[in-house]
Amino acid sequence: MRTLCSDLPAATGRVALEGWIHRRRRLAAVTFVVLRDRSGLAQAVVTDPVARDQVSELPEETAVRITGIATANAKAPGGVELTEPAIEPLGAPAQPPPVELWRPTLAAGLPTLLDHAAVTWRHPARQAVWRLAAASLAGFRSHLDGAGFTEIATPKIVGGSTESGATVFALDYFGDTAYLAQSPQLYKQMLTGVFERVYEVGPVFRAEPHDTARHLAQYTSLDAELGFIADHRDVLGVLRDTLAAMLDRIRESCGAALELLDIALPVVPERIPVVHFRRALELVGAAPEEPDLAPEHERALGRWAEATFGSEFLAVEGYPSAKRPFYTHPQPGDPRWTNSFDLLFRGLELVTGGQRLHRHADYLAALTAREDDPADYGPYLAAMAHGMPPHGGFAIGLERWVARLLGADNIRCAALFPRDVHRLRP
Amino acid sequence: MRTLCSDLPAATGRVALEGWIHRRRRLAAVTFVVLRDRSGLAQAVVTDPVARDQVSELPEETAVRITGIATANAKAPGGVELTEPAIEPLGAPAQPPPVELWRPTLAAGLPTLLDHAAVTWRHPARQAVWRLAAASLAGFRSHLDGAGFTEIATPKIVGGSTESGATVFALDYFGDTAYLAQSPQLYKQMLTGVFERVYEVGPVFRAEPHDTARHLAQYTSLDAELGFIADHRDVLGVLRDTLAAMLDRIRESCGAALELLDIALPVVPERIPVVHFRRALELVGAAPEEPDLAPEHERALGRWAEATFGSEFLAVEGYPSAKRPFYTHPQPGDPRWTNSFDLLFRGLELVTGGQRLHRHADYLAALTAREDDPADYGPYLAAMAHGMPPHGGFAIGLERWVARLLGADNIRCAALFPRDVHRLRP
Repeated sequence: MRTLCSDLPAATGRVALEGWIHRRRRLAAVTFVVLRDRSGLAQAVVTDPVARDQVSELPEETAVRITGIATANAKAPGGVELTEPAIEPLGAPAQPPPVELWRPTLAAGLPTLLDHAAVTWRHPARQAVWRLAAASLAGFRSHLDGAGFTEIATPKIVGGSTESGATVFALDYFGDTAYLAQSPQLYKQMLTGVFERVYEVGPVFRAEPHDTARHLAQYTSLDAELGFIADHRDVLGVLRDTLAAMLDRIRESCGAALELLDIALPVVPERIPVVHFRRALELVGAAPEEPDLAPEHERALGRWAEATFGSEFLAVEGYPSAKRPFYTHPQPGDPRWTNSFDLLFRGLELVTGGQRLHRHADYLAALTAREDDPADYGPYLAAMAHGMPPHGGFAIGLERWVARLLGADNIRCAALFPRDVHRLRP
Repeated sequence: MRTLCSDLPAATGRVALEGWIHRRRRLAAVTFVVLRDRSGLAQAVVTDPVARDQVSELPEETAVRITGIATANAKAPGGVELTEPAIEPLGAPAQPPPVELWRPTLAAGLPTLLDHAAVTWRHPARQAVWRLAAASLAGFRSHLDGAGFTEIATPKIVGGSTESGATVFALDYFGDTAYLAQSPQLYKQMLTGVFERVYEVGPVFRAEPHDTARHLAQYTSLDAELGFIADHRDVLGVLRDTLAAMLDRIRESCGAALELLDIALPVVPERIPVVHFRRALELVGAAPEEPDLAPEHERALGRWAEATFGSEFLAVEGYPSAKRPFYTHPQPGDPRWTNSFDLLFRGLELVTGGQRLHRHADYLAALTAREDDPADYGPYLAAMAHGMPPHGGFAIGLERWVARLLGADNIRCAALFPRDVHRLRP
């Protein structure tokens, strides 16, 4: 029966640990072996000369089973260490990793981390990053499950356009041309007509030809869509509660990771402050005809929200129609603006959401006005004729979310095996 | 404040329901309107002549809000109906759906169901099918979360081979040739070296050129992989508990769906019976040199397990090496066989799993023996040199699982928007 490293402090008598040799320290009369498993680290103290010689032949990262006696030692991590250990390799001795994984800080640049991702993710500080991601996924789902949402799984190979045709990957589909889905947007909308409230966590694909710190060719999108809303403010309310649940899950399950990463999680206010796009332009001193917010505008708005509302989150609503996709619902009474929003977090765009059109005639008009061919949207448009409720939704990019929690410059640090214009392996 | 249909029996006074007009029945002096929302059905009784004329103009499937008085009526579904209703359309009157959705049984063939999936999924019996799928996903994750697994998200665009090169979709990746991942196999293995125990729920892609009832070009794979195992029997144990948890979740959350579909869920025995491949051949009277089990053999084994063990599940272990992928761990002492298994459910293959190789040298030998080029497996092979623990795993196809619970002939009935050689839309 195996004991996890994290359970060693509570163990007595003979126990077996399994994991990787994280570090060996050979002193004059004793060798310390630090073992790493999924739960953390534990220490074994080797004094037998034969066993010490054996340890010398088992490099760091070798997978082993260590059987020994759980022995109290106030100086050991957790107050208990393993004495009289017998070490059994569970595979071949490991080749030296490309970076020393036992050092508290990984002494390697991003390219090295990514080139050797399968090994560098073993470092506790890297593992901690992904644990934030995994906890975020769990928090997202459990909140929406509790709010009457149904999980969906939609096609990633699509026959026609999704939101914009410019940056899609094309592929040969049994002799036909198909595309990798840029988002589940059209499918999640159609399925609000079935389940009212749906979510999907899955890969989306952008053939982004620019090598920037903000873009990936594949990322994990956390999509939600809900029907029977009054307007985009209802969507923002669900988004607020979802983000709060994601952070709660991180707090609950990632204590060690947060400590290791030394980051402060944000608090989502009960109501996220909202400012209209037009007012946002005024606040940052931009011209009223500006169609979008520049990064420096977003940063200024972030500071303003912090100073004015004590909030690290700010929703900007009412973005100009011209900058939003065709399915965006206009602002009632003034169609220059839309019932959509961007959520800024610490002065950076984190989430886009809003209300969608739900009447077939409005879709035809919107597509025609953009000189887009309604025939390209066949089944989606057809669904809109069969009684779609007022609906809207949002999408959170997992890697962007985690990178921003970390305060990381490059989104690649939050993807297990990132894909970009230069990176198709590992 | 909106009331769900399922909450109407407990409601009093004035309430607002929102949903779709599921059915109208106009009698001499009264019109019954059955409303459908995500929770079920409720009935409104319209007696006011003006309101009855309004209902005549609101076809089935129109999205509406109905405000009225919750009134006890022993004859109404749930014992409460809405009286004196005011009906407010929430969009345009719906066009007639391609199939009458109010009929208890959908009178349409599979092609019609799939061509109009966005609408036909609205039928309560179709919704019930997907609810089994969604509950299965939730049960899969919550069980593995509790068992120390970490959720992962791996690349769906890959640079090299995965398990077999024959049926992959190729795409242009910024001028390079890339492929859609057939499975997360190589990535989940690498990540057992990081997190020990990992799972992923995501799309996988097979360019299957044959139009069969069993194949999809995209399906949802429920993948798990775990390190520090003794052999494939440990994997089978986790699989057993995972399937039991998936079924438990269905029982807990899908009562209405199970009733509507009128299906009996299987019971997973505490220990799934196991038979060796060699013995399985004997049992079905096949020649000892047969490399695989034919469908009629699997059916015969299913009957045998039912008769012998009272089990609808049977694991066949030890499949011949020649029929298993290169990473399959041989059976210790007799490399003609492998530490892998197929799990049969009601005489049909449901899951494949097993122990993998974990030593770098073994991989080199296995690839060389198959005349496969180790260079094609660069980062994966490299990871194997850095101390991989003994590990193994399994993959469950969501659509196959649900289809088999239903006893359905065609796997397409369990995919929201299936993809196959002839179907790229909707």
